[in-house]
Amino acid sequence: ALILDTRNARNDCSLLPTGHLHNSEAFNYGVETWEAYKRGGLSRDLVEEQKKVQEADLLIFQFPLFWFNMPAILKGWMDRVLVQGFAYDLSKAYDGGLLQDKLSLFSFTTGGSQEMYSNESISGNIRYVLWPMQHGIMHFCGVKVLEPHICYAPEHASEEKRKEMLTAWTQRLKTLWKEEPIDCSPEWYFK
Amino acid sequence: ALILDTRNARNDCSLLPTGHLHNSEAFNYGVETWEAYKRGGLSRDLVEEQKKVQEADLLIFQFPLFWFNMPAILKGWMDRVLVQGFAYDLSKAYDGGLLQDKLSLFSFTTGGSQEMYSNESISGNIRYVLWPMQHGIMHFCGVKVLEPHICYAPEHASEEKRKEMLTAWTQRLKTLWKEEPIDCSPEWYFK
Repeated sequence: ALILDTRNARNDCSLLPTGHLHNSEAFNYGVETWEAYKRGGLSRDLVEEQKKVQEADLLIFQFPLFWFNMPAILKGWMDRVLVQGFAYDLSKAYDGGLLQDKLSLFSFTTGGSQEMYSNESISGNIRYVLWPMQHGIMHFCGVKVLEPHICYAPEHASEEKRKEMLTAWTQRLKTLWKEEPIDCSPEWYFK
Repeated sequence: ALILDTRNARNDCSLLPTGHLHNSEAFNYGVETWEAYKRGGLSRDLVEEQKKVQEADLLIFQFPLFWFNMPAILKGWMDRVLVQGFAYDLSKAYDGGLLQDKLSLFSFTTGGSQEMYSNESISGNIRYVLWPMQHGIMHFCGVKVLEPHICYAPEHASEEKRKEMLTAWTQRLKTLWKEEPIDCSPEWYFK
């Protein structure tokens, strides 16, 4: 089974398509990337990333939570790689998305403690921040979502606690293929 | 009143601090930017952006919604500009955040129609995607939040409809200073 590694994700925001514009009168970023995908005109680094996604059975996104969200560089990977025609298409979204039969898992570290991300805390349930990533991106493309893997505040944890976190992740990876995806609906996030 | 314009936001992800690292044994991105801020060692473009934020009474973020979120380039502006010591600090967050007495407004366009962002639709209430941006970033820094301004699917709207959208925005801007901020709590987003 192939696992995608996005740690070298770039986000230099260069114009994605190479060669001529599809419509040079009225520039539309979405249309241009869609047309470039269809004619094989996306820049080479994107085509390579798309090939990795195509071959992967499981996409693990590993990152530090920045501002209730993934870091910009990883969001840039999503913005650039998951173009129309490749990841979704007209009326091909959610359960009909183009990246079906794949799994995804968001694994991240936080600055705040677990107590800071509860229903009663001002920062709210950690699941609220997962909606745009898990549902809005992965589910939208037809990718199923496994339970997230969250390491709370490793920066403020003891050496021993940090080792426990790594051991727990190692253990989970061993039986990951037996896990069932979550029910990626509003109920999971907000009820 | 000054309004911040982030349309030229960059996100080249260069190392933020200039000069020596605070701790070259164990690199910690958050600590390095915090220390660099305190010693005046952030790169010049960041200092300029921070100066604009400091002088602004109102921050308007105008963007197309990409993947239930702001585009990476704007997220990169948040990641780079809103560093500890400048925007928040130890136990100085939310109503105690360092950017108090400022207002913010998220103004964006969507690909999907208004009907696609309702409680009953699979894409869920549009307010769900506003939580990380309005609450997790702006409220966290002490900035108050005005009602968002959303133009649904301008790409698929008639020329006449698009003109109406612009007129409505122009009209709103005229009386913006009389508006009251939203109650930026989980109830606004999820109830």
